[in-house]
Amino acid sequence: MASKPSIPKGTRDFSPAEVAKRQYIIQIIKDNFEKFGFQPIETPSFENSETLMGKYGEEGDRLIFKILNSGDYLAKANAAHLESKDSTKLTASISEKALRYDLTVPFARYVVQHQNDIEFPFKRYQIQPVWRADRPQKGRFREFFQCDADVVGSKSLWQEVELVQLYDTVFTTLGLEGVTVKINNRKILSGIAEVIGASDKLIDFTVALDKLDKIGEDGVKKEMIEKGIAEEAIAKVQPLFNFTGSISEKIEKLSQLLSASEEGIKGVEELRFICDKVMNLGLSSAILDLDVTLARGLNYYTGAIFEVAPPKGVAMGSIGGGGRYDDLTGIFGLKNMSGVGISFGLDRIYLVVEELNLFPETVTATSKALFINYGDKEAFYAMKAIKDLRAAGIKVELYPDNAKLAKQFQHADRRHIPFAVIAGDKEMESNTYSLKNLVTGEQLSVDFETLKNSLS
Amino acid sequence: MASKPSIPKGTRDFSPAEVAKRQYIIQIIKDNFEKFGFQPIETPSFENSETLMGKYGEEGDRLIFKILNSGDYLAKANAAHLESKDSTKLTASISEKALRYDLTVPFARYVVQHQNDIEFPFKRYQIQPVWRADRPQKGRFREFFQCDADVVGSKSLWQEVELVQLYDTVFTTLGLEGVTVKINNRKILSGIAEVIGASDKLIDFTVALDKLDKIGEDGVKKEMIEKGIAEEAIAKVQPLFNFTGSISEKIEKLSQLLSASEEGIKGVEELRFICDKVMNLGLSSAILDLDVTLARGLNYYTGAIFEVAPPKGVAMGSIGGGGRYDDLTGIFGLKNMSGVGISFGLDRIYLVVEELNLFPETVTATSKALFINYGDKEAFYAMKAIKDLRAAGIKVELYPDNAKLAKQFQHADRRHIPFAVIAGDKEMESNTYSLKNLVTGEQLSVDFETLKNSLS
Repeated sequence: MASKPSIPKGTRDFSPAEVAKRQYIIQIIKDNFEKFGFQPIETPSFENSETLMGKYGEEGDRLIFKILNSGDYLAKANAAHLESKDSTKLTASISEKALRYDLTVPFARYVVQHQNDIEFPFKRYQIQPVWRADRPQKGRFREFFQCDADVVGSKSLWQEVELVQLYDTVFTTLGLEGVTVKINNRKILSGIAEVIGASDKLIDFTVALDKLDKIGEDGVKKEMIEKGIAEEAIAKVQPLFNFTGSISEKIEKLSQLLSASEEGIKGVEELRFICDKVMNLGLSSAILDLDVTLARGLNYYTGAIFEVAPPKGVAMGSIGGGGRYDDLTGIFGLKNMSGVGISFGLDRIYLVVEELNLFPETVTATSKALFINYGDKEAFYAMKAIKDLRAAGIKVELYPDNAKLAKQFQHADRRHIPFAVIAGDKEMESNTYSLKNLVTGEQLSVDFETLKNSLS
Repeated sequence: MASKPSIPKGTRDFSPAEVAKRQYIIQIIKDNFEKFGFQPIETPSFENSETLMGKYGEEGDRLIFKILNSGDYLAKANAAHLESKDSTKLTASISEKALRYDLTVPFARYVVQHQNDIEFPFKRYQIQPVWRADRPQKGRFREFFQCDADVVGSKSLWQEVELVQLYDTVFTTLGLEGVTVKINNRKILSGIAEVIGASDKLIDFTVALDKLDKIGEDGVKKEMIEKGIAEEAIAKVQPLFNFTGSISEKIEKLSQLLSASEEGIKGVEELRFICDKVMNLGLSSAILDLDVTLARGLNYYTGAIFEVAPPKGVAMGSIGGGGRYDDLTGIFGLKNMSGVGISFGLDRIYLVVEELNLFPETVTATSKALFINYGDKEAFYAMKAIKDLRAAGIKVELYPDNAKLAKQFQHADRRHIPFAVIAGDKEMESNTYSLKNLVTGEQLSVDFETLKNSLS
């Protein structure tokens, strides 16, 4: 191979420092998932195609990575589709498996397949990569991790309360104070659609309303009218154009606005329960906000809808989202399984934590000391200490070769190893070690116990 | 979908208990990799096909999972191969990417691609899944994890010494005492081939010799002769048929046997250095053994060869292996990069640890206590305690629904949650909690501090 090797577009190599930082975030998410009673599962990277196809809409089907059948796959290829060179139709006969596109559908499949072994309500978390044949762009990758926590088998709104607390706890632990957990409810949106008498225009309505800060009330109304929403309909929801105040005040406004819609009122009640409990129990650093423009995959959620915005001042899209879906497993034939869950956006959280300089320095810590190699006799003396230090849980290394001293010290420097241990004839005779602090340059002659304590 | 969903053959779902046990093993491997100075990297799940194809032999090429190009892949398909229905040849024009087959080739690609950013010698570890379209059978899967540690950029034999220590430390920490770390050297094998004057028969020779325990000296010699190895050649290596004694004695025998082979002598010297250092530094529980029949992918390794056998009495193949390869990155155009590494076989280690009942009970520990749900008022009281307990790092849960008590206690029982916390009118009045030990049935009335201490 003549040219330098590369990796497919939209994928990434992670260096040691990057892996360490990602693991730091993942570990905090995991620890808190478990503290809240969620248990881990893992599913295969590829699923049977019929498990995934048709679950994410036409666009989703297109973006799912398909795996070519092994062996003589053309032998079983559909002759007509091959003849007509119809790629889309041919796929089904030459590809039986596809890479996971998200964690929700595999979770639904898992629940149905293992329903007899699962104790419900089932609180599961799953942190695994997913793959999408999206056009790669800044912050969008073809392989990325999802970190999901879902509860299936209970309609209790206490779950929603806990999920807001879970967001608060994770982001506070990460030092990301002041995230906004936005909450809405699908039934509120349905209620609004009912009141304005234009269910089919609901998305146009929320998209326009979401621009209130940017283009002002007149601009929003103009856009709504352009989209075909009647002026009288807009007048009916006038309070939404001045939708400020505390959450309680907002809920009060919604309660009046949606009084004619049975579903809308149900949404208001759900919101009231969740917000009331969350506020009374208190949040550590997150801000709860009721956002009636929040829609996120409208056709998916049936109750609460969540989205998390980074702390103010950070220019970044949502770093988490989720909601309630009343029929998670219906697609696989198991009815009446309500689910509610949230997801953490690892890549974006990483960028925000990096931007705010919140990764602890210890995260990328490498070995504590490099033992300088003066030759086999000295290396053997060093290895005896190294073995005992490692047994005490201390990360230490021997420079493998008897290279020039400058090179060995440069290696320690470039790897940000804070100490060098020098052990030559003099040290071996006195059964000591010279411990050099590579930051200050200070050098001490120490016995093993002192060495161990200094590096602990 | 009418029928129950399933997963592709050769793949697995992992339940919470299985994930916890796998993570327990992986964490011990990771901790020790880092203690020995190895740093983590991660590479994409799929690579460009040209990175992988041709690196694992013809059989390997066949077993690599290929990803179908997105969109109208037939538009760019090779017309002639399509016409002749040649699946193997067509693949290159309809598939540009393939799933990782092992971690070594992606690592070599990583080293070459990032050579300017890497500080050598580079000690990296990588724990990620790989995929092979092998025929699934007991203990062989189409998706499985590899756990590799390699050093690249140094020929120092101290690396081999440390890798034996690393095996010893990991398996001792897992409680798997008494594993045998078998060591051999490619140069010893070349020396034997030279001495018997039959390089092309080397594999036949070692395969036959490996059966010494089973079929005896006569049986082995008979097989060798059947394979076309001359009787006089066999006579020259007669000492190998009685190859017992300590490692030093074995090395002495080899030294005499291979005295005519320059390469063989070099192999003996390498073995002597490694074994001498390992023995003098001491192992915690592993047994080092020199096994001249050990060949493992003969064409791959150039120096030391390792393989780890489980403790005696456990019927299981090797649970680890590795070795030295002088030209790791040559396939990608970077010459003179010697590498040495070892791998841990996660699935088999799991089975052995399970069989010997060595998983600590705490590994699969779920929540410490389930708070019984008596209704919203009581649940709110419970949630205040739950919030504070979680803040103290204690895993606790509220049963989400106000279900029948029997059902809630059954849930705790089935999930092996050891305590239930009961908080009804009586407890709320006195600001206490009734803590019930679900194993002994004992129930105590406690204040929050006592509750916290009891569950810590």
